[in-house]
Amino acid sequence: MIFLQLSIFPLTVQFEDVDAHGVVHHPNYLKYLERARSYGMKKCGYSLEKLISSGSVLAISEIQAHYLRPALLEEELFVISQVTDVGKTSIKVQQVITLRLPKTDEIHLAEDQNVSLPETIFSAKIRLVCVDLKSAKAKSIPQDLKQAIKSFNQPLGANCSQNIDPPLVGELQKCEYLITT
Amino acid sequence: MIFLQLSIFPLTVQFEDVDAHGVVHHPNYLKYLERARSYGMKKCGYSLEKLISSGSVLAISEIQAHYLRPALLEEELFVISQVTDVGKTSIKVQQVITLRLPKTDEIHLAEDQNVSLPETIFSAKIRLVCVDLKSAKAKSIPQDLKQAIKSFNQPLGANCSQNIDPPLVGELQKCEYLITT
Amino acid sequence: MIFLQLSIFPLTVQFEDVDAHGVVHHPNYLKYLERARSYGMKKCGYSLEKLISSGSVLAISEIQAHYLRPALLEEELFVISQVTDVGKTSIKVQQVITLRLPKTDEIHLAEDQNVSLPETIFSAKIRLVCVDLKSAKAKSIPQDLKQAIKSFNQPLGANCSQNIDPPLVGELQKCEYLITT
Amino acid sequence: MIFLQLSIFPLTVQFEDVDAHGVVHHPNYLKYLERARSYGMKKCGYSLEKLISSGSVLAISEIQAHYLRPALLEEELFVISQVTDVGKTSIKVQQVITLRLPKTDEIHLAEDQNVSLPETIFSAKIRLVCVDLKSAKAKSIPQDLKQAIKSFNQPLGANCSQNIDPPLVGELQKCEYLITT
Repeated sequence: MIFLQLSIFPLTVQFEDVDAHGVVHHPNYLKYLERARSYGMKKCGYSLEKLISSGSVLAISEIQAHYLRPALLEEELFVISQVTDVGKTSIKVQQVITLRLPKTDEIHLAEDQNVSLPETIFSAKIRLVCVDLKSAKAKSIPQDLKQAIKSFNQPLGANCSQNIDPPLVGELQKCEYLITT
Repeated sequence: MIFLQLSIFPLTVQFEDVDAHGVVHHPNYLKYLERARSYGMKKCGYSLEKLISSGSVLAISEIQAHYLRPALLEEELFVISQVTDVGKTSIKVQQVITLRLPKTDEIHLAEDQNVSLPETIFSAKIRLVCVDLKSAKAKSIPQDLKQAIKSFNQPLGANCSQNIDPPLVGELQKCEYLITT
Repeated sequence: MIFLQLSIFPLTVQFEDVDAHGVVHHPNYLKYLERARSYGMKKCGYSLEKLISSGSVLAISEIQAHYLRPALLEEELFVISQVTDVGKTSIKVQQVITLRLPKTDEIHLAEDQNVSLPETIFSAKIRLVCVDLKSAKAKSIPQDLKQAIKSFNQPLGANCSQNIDPPLVGELQKCEYLITT
Repeated sequence: MIFLQLSIFPLTVQFEDVDAHGVVHHPNYLKYLERARSYGMKKCGYSLEKLISSGSVLAISEIQAHYLRPALLEEELFVISQVTDVGKTSIKVQQVITLRLPKTDEIHLAEDQNVSLPETIFSAKIRLVCVDLKSAKAKSIPQDLKQAIKSFNQPLGANCSQNIDPPLVGELQKCEYLITT
C-alpha cells in the first residue's frame, strides 16, 4: 500500500499566455510546471529562497512532455505534481495538467507509479539536478529538502480517507490529494 | 549515401532570456527552437504565414529535451535543425544548440540518423502534428510544405563538397551545412 | 462626494518573472497590469472573451509608467486598478502595485482623482482604445461594457462603510475597496 | 550644429511575440527596446557584462510609450535609439520602432532634439537610473560608460556625409545613421 500526496496548483490562462491561434503557447506550459513545483516546495515547508540561500539550485536536466489538447484563454487549469524519485543529486517529478480536479476514484496509478488523471491536457516527466551555484557542478540535494519531500510523500496514517474527496478550489491551500493504493 | 542539409539559426542570448541565476531560463530554449523552425521553413521557400493562411498549424505534440550546459548572457548560440521524418500528419525534427559552428568533420551521424555536434549545450527531439485551424483536428500536411522540406533535404549533387566548410556567421543566409554520409 | 470602487488583484512573484538581478524584469509589470485589468473586467460582469466575440479589442495606446522600487522573488503584490475616464472610444486606467493591502485611511485622492497608496512600488497610467478586430480601426466602446464599468464605479449607497477595512487576501473575490471622498 | 549618431537594431517579429490577435503583445515592445539598448551599448565599446561586473545596473525608472500601429508576425522592424541626456546618475533615451530604414532627409529633429521618423509604429522615452547592485541605491554612472556614450554621440568630423544614405540591413554592424543639424 502506497500513500501518494499530490500537490495541486490551480491557475487561470491569461491573455499573455496565448499565441496567435488563441491557445496557450507551448513554452508556457513549462512555466506553469515551474510555478507548481515552487508552490509544492513551499507546501513541503521548504522554499525557493531557502534553496538559493543554501547555494544550490535545482536545474532542469531532462524534460519529456506530451501536449494532448490545447488550453484556451481564461480556462482554469490544475497542475498536479508528484515526486516520483529522489536520488543523491537528482529528483524526478511527474506533472500533469488537467481541466478539472479529479475525484479520488478517477486517479489511477500506472505500473511505473505515475498517476493517470481524467481530462488531462498535458503531461511531463522532469528530471532536476541539484547544482552548486558557484562551481556550477552537481552536488548532493540538501538534507533538509530531502527530508521535506519525504515527509510530504509519507503515509499519513489511518485517517487518510478523510481526504478522499476533491478539495474545493478555495480550499487548496489547506488540503491536497491523498491516494491509497 | 545520404545528404543532410542542416538549417543553422544563430542568436545572441538577451537579458530578457536569463533567469535569477544568470543563465537562460529553461522554457526559453523552446522559443529558440521555434524561431529556428520558422527560419528553416523560410529557407525551404515556405513560411509560417503561408501555413496559417492554408488553414493549418504545426502544433507541438511531443518534446524530449536534454539540458546539458547552461547558456549565459550575451553568448552567441547556434540552433542546428534537421527534419528526421515526414509522415502523413506529423513531422519529426531534431534540434541541437551549440556554442560554435561545427566543422564538417566534427559532425557525426548516430545510428538513428540524428547528428551529433561538438560543444552541444542542449538537444531536443520534437514531434509536430499538422492541425486544422477550424476543427482543431489532425490533418494531412499540405503537399507544398512536404515538397519544400523534401527539396531542402534532397541530395544536391556532386558539387556538395563546396559547402563542407562551416559558413561564416554573416554568410548564414546564403549557405547551410551539407553532410555526406 | 465620490465613491471609488477599486479592483484589487493579488499575485505572487514567480521565478519566471525575475531577471539576472533577482528582481522582476521590467516588461513583466505590464503583464501584471493586464492580468489585473482582465480580472477587473470580470468583476464588472464582463469578460475578455465577451469583448473579443463582439469583434472588439481594447488595444494599448499609451503607457506612462514609474518604477519606484524593485519587486523580489516570491513577494506578494497587489495590483490596484481604477478606471479614471471612459470616453467614446477610449478608456483611461490608473494602476498601482503595492506590497500590502492599504487601510482605508491610507488611501488618498490626488487632485486629478488618482489614488495614492502606501508602499507603492510601481504606478502607471494606461490609455486603451477600442479597436475593431476586422478593420483595425478605432470604434465605440460596446455599450454593455461601458455600462458594466459604470455600475462598478457607481456609489453603492449608505452601507459603503461596511467595506472600509482592507479585505483579507482570501476574501478578495468577494469584496473590493470602496472609498468615500 | 549637432551630429547625432543613431543606433539601429533590426529584428524580425517571431511567433512567440504575437498575441491572440496576431499582433505583437504590448509588453514585448519593451523587450525589443532593451535588446536595442544592449546592442547600442556594445556599439559604444561597452557591454552589459562590463556594467554588471562593475557592480552597477541601469534600472528602468520611467517609461512613456506610445503605441501607434500594431506590428505583425514576421514583420521586419527597426529599433532606432538615441541617447538624449546623460546626467550624474541617470540616462534618458528616446527609442522609436519603424517599419523601414529612414533616408537621411526623412529624419527630422523636434525642438526637444528628439528625432521624428517615417513609418513609426511605436515610440518611447525611457529614463534609466544607475543603481548599485549591493546597496540597491542610485550611484554615479561609471565614468567609462559615460565616456563611451559621449564618444558615440560625438561629431565625427567632415566625413560624416559619407554615411547619409540608409545602410543596408546586412551592413548595420558597420554603419549607423549620422545626422547633421
